[in-house]
Amino acid sequence: MAGTMKAFVMRRIGEVGVIAKPIPADPGPNDAIIKTRTALICTSDVHTVKGAIGERTDQTLGHEACGIVDRVGSAVTLFKPGDRIVVNAITPCYKCHNCQRGFTSQCGQPLGGWKFANIKDGSFAEYFHVNDADANLTMIPEDVSDEAACYTTDMMSTGFKGAENADIVLGGTAVVFGMGPVGQMAAVGARLLGAGLVIAVDKVPRRLELAKEYGADVVINYGEKDPVEEIMKLTNGDGVDSAMEAVGAQIPLENCIKVTRPGGTISNIGYHGEGEYLNIPRAEWGVGMAEKTIKTLLCPGGSERMTRLLRLIENGRVDPTKMTSHHFSFDDVEKAFWMMDTKEDNMFKPVIHFE
Amino acid sequence: MAGTMKAFVMRRIGEVGVIAKPIPADPGPNDAIIKTRTALICTSDVHTVKGAIGERTDQTLGHEACGIVDRVGSAVTLFKPGDRIVVNAITPCYKCHNCQRGFTSQCGQPLGGWKFANIKDGSFAEYFHVNDADANLTMIPEDVSDEAACYTTDMMSTGFKGAENADIVLGGTAVVFGMGPVGQMAAVGARLLGAGLVIAVDKVPRRLELAKEYGADVVINYGEKDPVEEIMKLTNGDGVDSAMEAVGAQIPLENCIKVTRPGGTISNIGYHGEGEYLNIPRAEWGVGMAEKTIKTLLCPGGSERMTRLLRLIENGRVDPTKMTSHHFSFDDVEKAFWMMDTKEDNMFKPVIHFE
Amino acid sequence: MAGTMKAFVMRRIGEVGVIAKPIPADPGPNDAIIKTRTALICTSDVHTVKGAIGERTDQTLGHEACGIVDRVGSAVTLFKPGDRIVVNAITPCYKCHNCQRGFTSQCGQPLGGWKFANIKDGSFAEYFHVNDADANLTMIPEDVSDEAACYTTDMMSTGFKGAENADIVLGGTAVVFGMGPVGQMAAVGARLLGAGLVIAVDKVPRRLELAKEYGADVVINYGEKDPVEEIMKLTNGDGVDSAMEAVGAQIPLENCIKVTRPGGTISNIGYHGEGEYLNIPRAEWGVGMAEKTIKTLLCPGGSERMTRLLRLIENGRVDPTKMTSHHFSFDDVEKAFWMMDTKEDNMFKPVIHFE
Amino acid sequence: MAGTMKAFVMRRIGEVGVIAKPIPADPGPNDAIIKTRTALICTSDVHTVKGAIGERTDQTLGHEACGIVDRVGSAVTLFKPGDRIVVNAITPCYKCHNCQRGFTSQCGQPLGGWKFANIKDGSFAEYFHVNDADANLTMIPEDVSDEAACYTTDMMSTGFKGAENADIVLGGTAVVFGMGPVGQMAAVGARLLGAGLVIAVDKVPRRLELAKEYGADVVINYGEKDPVEEIMKLTNGDGVDSAMEAVGAQIPLENCIKVTRPGGTISNIGYHGEGEYLNIPRAEWGVGMAEKTIKTLLCPGGSERMTRLLRLIENGRVDPTKMTSHHFSFDDVEKAFWMMDTKEDNMFKPVIHFE
Repeated sequence: MAGTMKAFVMRRIGEVGVIAKPIPADPGPNDAIIKTRTALICTSDVHTVKGAIGERTDQTLGHEACGIVDRVGSAVTLFKPGDRIVVNAITPCYKCHNCQRGFTSQCGQPLGGWKFANIKDGSFAEYFHVNDADANLTMIPEDVSDEAACYTTDMMSTGFKGAENADIVLGGTAVVFGMGPVGQMAAVGARLLGAGLVIAVDKVPRRLELAKEYGADVVINYGEKDPVEEIMKLTNGDGVDSAMEAVGAQIPLENCIKVTRPGGTISNIGYHGEGEYLNIPRAEWGVGMAEKTIKTLLCPGGSERMTRLLRLIENGRVDPTKMTSHHFSFDDVEKAFWMMDTKEDNMFKPVIHFE
Repeated sequence: MAGTMKAFVMRRIGEVGVIAKPIPADPGPNDAIIKTRTALICTSDVHTVKGAIGERTDQTLGHEACGIVDRVGSAVTLFKPGDRIVVNAITPCYKCHNCQRGFTSQCGQPLGGWKFANIKDGSFAEYFHVNDADANLTMIPEDVSDEAACYTTDMMSTGFKGAENADIVLGGTAVVFGMGPVGQMAAVGARLLGAGLVIAVDKVPRRLELAKEYGADVVINYGEKDPVEEIMKLTNGDGVDSAMEAVGAQIPLENCIKVTRPGGTISNIGYHGEGEYLNIPRAEWGVGMAEKTIKTLLCPGGSERMTRLLRLIENGRVDPTKMTSHHFSFDDVEKAFWMMDTKEDNMFKPVIHFE
Repeated sequence: MAGTMKAFVMRRIGEVGVIAKPIPADPGPNDAIIKTRTALICTSDVHTVKGAIGERTDQTLGHEACGIVDRVGSAVTLFKPGDRIVVNAITPCYKCHNCQRGFTSQCGQPLGGWKFANIKDGSFAEYFHVNDADANLTMIPEDVSDEAACYTTDMMSTGFKGAENADIVLGGTAVVFGMGPVGQMAAVGARLLGAGLVIAVDKVPRRLELAKEYGADVVINYGEKDPVEEIMKLTNGDGVDSAMEAVGAQIPLENCIKVTRPGGTISNIGYHGEGEYLNIPRAEWGVGMAEKTIKTLLCPGGSERMTRLLRLIENGRVDPTKMTSHHFSFDDVEKAFWMMDTKEDNMFKPVIHFE
Repeated sequence: MAGTMKAFVMRRIGEVGVIAKPIPADPGPNDAIIKTRTALICTSDVHTVKGAIGERTDQTLGHEACGIVDRVGSAVTLFKPGDRIVVNAITPCYKCHNCQRGFTSQCGQPLGGWKFANIKDGSFAEYFHVNDADANLTMIPEDVSDEAACYTTDMMSTGFKGAENADIVLGGTAVVFGMGPVGQMAAVGARLLGAGLVIAVDKVPRRLELAKEYGADVVINYGEKDPVEEIMKLTNGDGVDSAMEAVGAQIPLENCIKVTRPGGTISNIGYHGEGEYLNIPRAEWGVGMAEKTIKTLLCPGGSERMTRLLRLIENGRVDPTKMTSHHFSFDDVEKAFWMMDTKEDNMFKPVIHFE
């Protein structure tokens, strides 16, 4: 298996490129090597290249991919070469204290489950390495496409967790701020969990249209109307049971707190990349006494969750491929990457095909 | 307001009839009198007449109804004569210890929230009395019909609570045993709460068809196949995350325990009317160590829940009127009642119109 | 019952006094009039007088009191004149949507359960009025003193809820910032709920001593040492499972976020009276992805909770009277009030005796 | 490391003995070999020998032990030879679906986390093998004795989980049926979790005395009084919030259901070894509508939990060694074993010393 492969890497902050890298050596006893077939580019790949998590040198990008098992370690029992599998963006060890506590995305340390394209090479390469394969690989059901499966790795797992964290009440009211791919999945998640009114807020008409297609009951273009005022009107002045922040910015977080009713939940989904502080509006937070809970999350991984997400696709609960805006071969990954930055040609979510 | 009205009563065990009764006197300070417009007959009305809760003399039957507020007590602030409202089958006081603990259906004592046609006159009369009106009456939205609203009083509230109690996991697996009206709503509830696979078990083909229409992924006719075996097959031998008993009998309860995976939940919805004991199969219950939880419920009431259930109808999440099999005027209520017993003419759920 | 009584009132912002007021008239159907016996002064009474909740004119202060039932409304069934009772600071209606949702302290609106000395007269008077008496009055067990019972109304209910909100893990680690009376009860609550390590932070040595007496395992004087650094050391760099803010200020809130481990909970107890925003430190909040949950509360009321709090006193789980620093007769209430402001003579918690 | 060691084994149903066995070979990559120092005999060892889990041939008994790490596999990173560690009775893989779902004791299959003396050799030998060492070994703090540490492996973890499953309410009421070692720890757990009234039921006076020492508020000798009647009296006819079954028999399970109030929880702790069915009393179960939840458990393992249990000992929350009734050297293990069966000489919990 010696030899080289092509990998799409962050050469340094601000610079990317396809380079030759050695094919990963035989995996450790618990690990596996995957031959990549299909992947998605994530806006967070762009953030990473711009320096969000610091300097990296020739680190392979990518964390949303599926492929074929190439080799497995001696202690791997559930998978074998040839299996068509998908891997979550987050690959915990499952054994450390945080994992045992149920916070697998915080494996070992805060955000420690996030390994791909962070502390190790990611999946934008012809082969990639996966730790703890028995727990982190998931068989793709025959009738689920590669493309659909890739959406479970981050967009669905993150967005749905956003809704799960939001304490959706059956028949209750929910709002999502920010209708990017994760926000779309948060809104879908809110519906799947029984919200009786799902409101979507963005300023890009195409995103609001997609939200409608995905089942949002009401969409608000915040470029046209004050979303807080609109939401309070829609809920007879009560505010919503559940507010989801899917941007990673001060204003939508603040709006979430403003529109959440006493006893309701603010579910932060977005990555907050800037500033020393996030600001909580004191009065609308009920001077610290209105029982508005603020939760956060990092994409939950693991084969058990992935199996359930794939089942939702398989049984027709959601079609994530509606989010696909473009297709590229791996040869064009750099072009796709920069379009993800500019959102040129209405780029929303590009699929990269390796074969 | 003195005068008499027609009421459909249980004259004694085994005997019903329409008799003249005084129109209810002015309500106490917290209560209201409702002029009935529309009602549903419940199988439990039939059980009551057959003696399930003991002897009653000329007690008005019925607990699924909506109507117009006729008079309110001096301390009622949220409703006034003329309001079109619906009342849950269960009407708690909201102030006793059990209510404060959140178990409003156990108001004052086990099952104590159940007052209509149990410890006071029910709603099969031209007028009926409602205690604690501010909490127990709910305005019906303009675009929800009387008929649809009546389904929130018991079928939807009970069935959905069955699903809420079942710890439905997003993308998880669920089964409902018994596809009567409450079982149908339990299956709908399981879907609304995010189950990725919903299985419905009955032996009446029409009920299984309706379950399909309502979104069950798989239906099993237990007259044709062993449901336990089928369910284990459908779940790769794991069993389901959530099993709902919507019959009130030993066999389906036992089957629920058999098909629930370790760590899963059995949600009992059915009223168990017979025998000294229910029997838990020891081995399949994991010899008391497999972390299979058994929960029970009694239809939750209250305007807050009712508002959410009505919102689910209003926003197109569920159309309960698909369950309506027959319409009758109040003059024919006795005929409808006995058809509910025999299930003659495929009686499933009859609507009674008072005007 | 006509006649006047003495009441200790907020005459206007910054000014208090004992004035004559009419004895409350007969209560509404659900309410009661209490003859006051014993009361505690709360720091929040001082805040109120300084303008924290806006202007008031001759409004009776006080919300921590017990007494004897003097008269009850026609619909009150559980209490009668002569009963020795205690009333929580928060007196919800139990029937509005927020109450039905379980957020009784948010009765009707944010913080709406807080009625005494806010939207109606408080309990620093010879008589006071209580709404919804059946749910808001609680019999005091014979072997619980008036003084002890008064502590259940706010200090114990608020502090303990702070611990309940903190998701204390059996054998887990917990910290309380601010060892005033509510902070003391938060630390006691953390122990009662099974924390394996309870850390108390303050700068007043007497308060830290009291915390030790109440069972804190470690105390940190933040005047001497950096509490964040100390707490990280005490937890081997992990941080605590549960951090409680019992001050109502930016620094301790910020410290709570800093010392909470991923997946842990920050329980805000303090009332935040100043500034447009509270500031969440972005990095230590895990850039919105470390699963650190922030909860808030307002003292939970109701006879069911009060019964449990009284049981904890009765069965020796806690002796709140250790917090009493001074005793006054009602004639000296104004003096006691101003000492509560200055904390002169080590004022910690003063008991006011009406007889 | 070749060579033989002494092991106390089940030779076949009904027969035990100390035999020579090969010292375990080098462990797999994730595993470890422990040199045993101290162990406890469990009543379940006796059940096993009597055939409770079927035939076994020369299988080493024992699952409550601590010792010194002798060798570790290549992928073990947190432990090294010489470490003084303790191992829970249950040793999950942490990676299968049930483990990922949080039900680690159901690893792979119902009860699948239970490996020692069930599907592999136990710890009554000079050396024993532990799978997945990084997650299943726990360092013993310096000031915790071997003897105390051994109690965390089953008695404390199981008993405390019994209380955790019982939904203990702060200041609420709880009862434990069966005051063997696990029942004692369930009662301690109930206190640690904030129960305001803890009732202990047994018929052996010494056990009731010990329960008192451990903090039970009331003890009931069921040989002298009807426990159901007594408990209903003690709770003013309400029943308890939380009832724990720590025997594994029909009568106490039935009594738990009878004494639990509506909305309360029955926590089954006992292993039920006999009969085709357990019987649920229909009327007291509220005809399936009183919201009485029944939960079960199998001792939870894992280093995270063990660390917390050890902290409770370290910080003086519980002294499990009060339960030790006898000490033996490993040479006398067979004698100790049979005394555990007969309970001769008031045998309660015997400690076996290997050195």
